[in-house]
Amino acid sequence: MPTFKANQLIEIGTKIFSAAGASIEEARLVSEFLVKANLVGHDSHGVIRIMQYVDEIEKGSIKPRAKIEVVKETFSSAILNGNWGFGQVVAKKAMEKAIEKAKDSSVSIVCVFNCNHVGRLADYTLMASRNNMIGIAMVNSVKFVAPFGGRERLLSTGPISFAFPTNLGFPFVIDIATSVVAEGKVRVALHKGDKIPYGWIIDKNGNPSNNPQDLYDGGAMLPLGGEEVGYKGFGLGLAVDILSGILSGAGCAYEETKRGNGVFFEVINIEKFMPIEEFKRKVDKLIKTIKESKTRSGFKEIMIPGEPEYLTEKVRLKEGIYVPERTWKEIKKVAEKLGVNL
Amino acid sequence: MPTFKANQLIEIGTKIFSAAGASIEEARLVSEFLVKANLVGHDSHGVIRIMQYVDEIEKGSIKPRAKIEVVKETFSSAILNGNWGFGQVVAKKAMEKAIEKAKDSSVSIVCVFNCNHVGRLADYTLMASRNNMIGIAMVNSVKFVAPFGGRERLLSTGPISFAFPTNLGFPFVIDIATSVVAEGKVRVALHKGDKIPYGWIIDKNGNPSNNPQDLYDGGAMLPLGGEEVGYKGFGLGLAVDILSGILSGAGCAYEETKRGNGVFFEVINIEKFMPIEEFKRKVDKLIKTIKESKTRSGFKEIMIPGEPEYLTEKVRLKEGIYVPERTWKEIKKVAEKLGVNL
Repeated sequence: MPTFKANQLIEIGTKIFSAAGASIEEARLVSEFLVKANLVGHDSHGVIRIMQYVDEIEKGSIKPRAKIEVVKETFSSAILNGNWGFGQVVAKKAMEKAIEKAKDSSVSIVCVFNCNHVGRLADYTLMASRNNMIGIAMVNSVKFVAPFGGRERLLSTGPISFAFPTNLGFPFVIDIATSVVAEGKVRVALHKGDKIPYGWIIDKNGNPSNNPQDLYDGGAMLPLGGEEVGYKGFGLGLAVDILSGILSGAGCAYEETKRGNGVFFEVINIEKFMPIEEFKRKVDKLIKTIKESKTRSGFKEIMIPGEPEYLTEKVRLKEGIYVPERTWKEIKKVAEKLGVNL
Repeated sequence: MPTFKANQLIEIGTKIFSAAGASIEEARLVSEFLVKANLVGHDSHGVIRIMQYVDEIEKGSIKPRAKIEVVKETFSSAILNGNWGFGQVVAKKAMEKAIEKAKDSSVSIVCVFNCNHVGRLADYTLMASRNNMIGIAMVNSVKFVAPFGGRERLLSTGPISFAFPTNLGFPFVIDIATSVVAEGKVRVALHKGDKIPYGWIIDKNGNPSNNPQDLYDGGAMLPLGGEEVGYKGFGLGLAVDILSGILSGAGCAYEETKRGNGVFFEVINIEKFMPIEEFKRKVDKLIKTIKESKTRSGFKEIMIPGEPEYLTEKVRLKEGIYVPERTWKEIKKVAEKLGVNL
């Protein structure tokens, strides 16, 4: 039974997290975020995390029903203490607050500390664009990336996301790590026994490597731009670490005590700059101009950020989500342990 | 006489721009920005532009003494019509306004349309960091960059800059194009007769090329990330085009009528989030941790964004700025034409 409808998986996740101590609202919300990741094709952020989250609840690093506190607030900004609740619960609250503040203030910023992993940034920036606003998000996490010219892990893969409202029919959202690739890609290659291209990582001595194992044996990932212009990804990674790690109070990636995500959310209220329909019309025209332009050989079409996920979601809503046998066994095991009848 | 003190060059520029119709304040300000670019080593943005600007004044594309108009304004945001004045004059005014607004509002955005080229973004974001705030800037300009998978020029090299206050002793500023390299680097290679590395550009048929001439024969630049992960630079370039081109009202890079820079400036008031000294202490510690970490072979030290420019400036303040014979001849010629005694 390895293929499920999205709703089935959400029910399963909800039951398990509830049994592990989460409120029914939290359990459902976290499950919805995980299954959404599966739907759009990012299985590494999907239901495979159920076991990890239950484990973290048991260890006390995720605290269900944690109270989210506003520790500093102005008309257009806020800092939240997530008190180590579920990252998704805390981050959703933070983005809701940023959207609310942007209604009056043109632009708002909400930062979060003491926050567990929030999952895909696109899920939050798209909340803003569904409200006809621009969503911007950055998070830092534990160290994985070497500075340009360096060989020690000191920065996180620090992703950045932007979402813009359109009338295009698919959610237009940019969501990229500031390292050459996300760490998950190296891990996938490792599990498959594949080599990786040179330029993704260095080994513990700072030498180029195509062996994914070298990353986990004291190596480091390289910043976007790689061997040649990695100072660009390094610069972006620094900006992410400062905005989401220092301004938020969450701590920098290099710190040994670092865990979870430092969060920086920004929302821009387009209506304070121009009529929303004019904005959407201009973005639509930009995207259509690009979609209709000539491709390079090897490319059937130009994919817009957010489009591949949309196409995958359409298929998986219809055909279901395939859960590997091993993952399904582990989910069943954790359910059994918690006395949950699946 | 090819080596000058910075002040000499500023005087020369001021005299020439004044004679071409600029007010004395404008003439001095633009000259200061150009010479600053020479001082920090970005000669392509330096006094070599004097002839171009005089030419643009004569053609009417730069309008000296243009009135800068505020066309839309809120407590924390504004849109300015630069009325095609000098880009530096307009952009400086815009950043001053953003800083002023951020004093009360935690975060502010000021966008500009009808604006000529503003030069280096770092000059503006550093205005914010000198005021103990965070400066963020993006601009778009004419099309040069192909979308990932495409072969037509549709986006600009759309740079992004971040500046953060520190007590480090050098201005910490990130300023990077979202293409693999800035267009100036291809032009320099062309003038020197050098080949360029594969991965910077494609020719008019969308094929990889190491011949810089191919860019100017209908080719295009590639987005940051190049052949492999160029969807990242493409995504960032789209965000820059939308924020600085659409939200500002300045127009997108792909539009045939596009000229000058669309401008997006943002300022974050750190004091609304945390005490400024705590912020600086934490940024200093991050930077020092990186500076003191182990380098890869081939790197003597890890350079922090903004540091190379600072080191060049120290040298050039002492030893002067070298102006190539050809450039100096052209400056003299333009001065003579305008009746300026150098």
